Amino acid sequence: MKIIVDAFGGDNAPLEIIKGCIDAKNELGVDIMLTGKKEDIEKCAKDNSLDISSFEIKNADTVFQMTDTPSEIVKSKRGTSLGVGIDALADGEGDAFVSAGSTGALLVGGTLIAKRIKGIKRPALAAVMPSNNNPFILVDTGANCECNSEMLCQFAMLGSLYMEKILGVNKPKVALANIGTEETKGTPLAVETYQKLKEMKNINFIGNIEARSIPFGEADVIVADGFSGNMIIKMYEGAAKAISNQVKDVFKKNIFTKLAYLGVKSGMDDFKERMNYKKYGGAPLVGVSKPVFKAHGSSDAYAIKNTIAQAVKYVDSGFIEIVEKSLKGNENNE
Amino acid sequence: MKIIVDAFGGDNAPLEIIKGCIDAKNELGVDIMLTGKKEDIEKCAKDNSLDISSFEIKNADTVFQMTDTPSEIVKSKRGTSLGVGIDALADGEGDAFVSAGSTGALLVGGTLIAKRIKGIKRPALAAVMPSNNNPFILVDTGANCECNSEMLCQFAMLGSLYMEKILGVNKPKVALANIGTEETKGTPLAVETYQKLKEMKNINFIGNIEARSIPFGEADVIVADGFSGNMIIKMYEGAAKAISNQVKDVFKKNIFTKLAYLGVKSGMDDFKERMNYKKYGGAPLVGVSKPVFKAHGSSDAYAIKNTIAQAVKYVDSGFIEIVEKSLKGNENNE
Repeated sequence: MKIIVDAFGGDNAPLEIIKGCIDAKNELGVDIMLTGKKEDIEKCAKDNSLDISSFEIKNADTVFQMTDTPSEIVKSKRGTSLGVGIDALADGEGDAFVSAGSTGALLVGGTLIAKRIKGIKRPALAAVMPSNNNPFILVDTGANCECNSEMLCQFAMLGSLYMEKILGVNKPKVALANIGTEETKGTPLAVETYQKLKEMKNINFIGNIEARSIPFGEADVIVADGFSGNMIIKMYEGAAKAISNQVKDVFKKNIFTKLAYLGVKSGMDDFKERMNYKKYGGAPLVGVSKPVFKAHGSSDAYAIKNTIAQAVKYVDSGFIEIVEKSLKGNENNE
Repeated sequence: MKIIVDAFGGDNAPLEIIKGCIDAKNELGVDIMLTGKKEDIEKCAKDNSLDISSFEIKNADTVFQMTDTPSEIVKSKRGTSLGVGIDALADGEGDAFVSAGSTGALLVGGTLIAKRIKGIKRPALAAVMPSNNNPFILVDTGANCECNSEMLCQFAMLGSLYMEKILGVNKPKVALANIGTEETKGTPLAVETYQKLKEMKNINFIGNIEARSIPFGEADVIVADGFSGNMIIKMYEGAAKAISNQVKDVFKKNIFTKLAYLGVKSGMDDFKERMNYKKYGGAPLVGVSKPVFKAHGSSDAYAIKNTIAQAVKYVDSGFIEIVEKSLKGNENNE
């Protein structure tokens, strides 16, 4: 299996990207194609004594900037490391594409260059997150700020299939993120979507979920528009970090608290590992007809490696074919 | 000062409400008017050996249910403890009204019975929350699911005045909750609102804020529509609780971890106290021409007492007159 990786996406490119790819190759046995300025990649590898002789490098002279307009990825920014990567994926030069670069450009490129699965209104970013119980998936985490009920129902279907086929959850519990649990709560869109989700036969809809219940793992799939989904995921991440910092400070106070830390070190390490969203890798752009993964902008080598691992699972699971079949099945039922 | 309190709002009514009122009277020296079924209030007090002889009780035979339609508060549900309370406030029988009951009914009652401040489009729920730095205020936390940019700009003004006049923050930093920090990010509404906030002369607008930065206290005022604001506040609350539970479990493991706890107990207590949103009391319905406070549905006596304390500060600060003056000033400038 060959994974195409944008060597110049994210805050820690290209060094951490290259390191993550080397780890992925060693641990998972995948082939890697890096996209980006060839001489810069080779220089970075050399400067850090990293062996990338087995990597294919597809040259791209420029980088898509966070200030660039996403739609330019199909036109003037097609020659960036992100654009070249998505083109290589569309042309079948690799099995999946991973980038820690612009979410917007990845979405536009995924939709217009790699193309949507037939029948899918809009691809969405789906992130797997830890909870006090089992991990859950949140769809959408920020690709589509404005949604209609049909899109949200597709997000529910995509999230449910992901949890079932890739994470092996039996009859995943699907919930709609809302400001209250009653079916009359929320925006007109939320009320309309509730009714449509209730009628869907291929998902196990359990109703609305308030954001405060999400970290307790009360649902396996959380459906949200990209705007509020982004608030949910980033607030979760921010709160976890802020609170962990506070707990850390408690232990740093004096010699007694430092001694106390020794007593709970293994437990605290378990806790940190459980809350470490980096181990779940990046977010697949579900609904695209080829595997496209968005890694966190602040990804280090560990996060890149895990995103590649997730991409491998995604390809192996045949997720895209399953979605295509499911959409055809629905058509036939209509 | 007399505070009118809905004796039958929330999950722990009437006992915790009555207890909170007794504590508020003793600590703050306020007079209390309770609304609700007189004989039930008296029986509850008697059964629990609570002295409420100094409280005024305004009878209301029924209770507004969470399944009732909010707009009914002005019509068929006017005789509920919530409706009677808001009517008493509108009639000048007390200085502020506190309820842990239906947010929707309180919003409709606040808007149509107690009335908006002249010039205010829609009142909003404003909640003060802890952060790793200073507390911040979030407007709106769920009163208005759908907003326009004019409403959001008013929320910014109301939140800024609150932080300045009640919490004594100099030039409060105002930020718009959005999915990215760039001014082109988010929904068309977010983009439009950003430009309008930038032009407001009476606030210190610092730009967009991503949800992950909110718990670090990077802004004093967070502006959000009620739908995403609700996601932010409840996710914060849920994540804090879930993570605290995990940390608690770490200490419960065995005799060594329990001993370790003794070493950090005071620090952990400080941390818990800092994260205890109950100490900030409830959420004022800013923009209403009389002080109306929504206490958390799960409020205990401590939360009710603190909401009353916050209401007292709100009345004392002359916040409503300040808002009225500010709106008139803007009119004259136009």
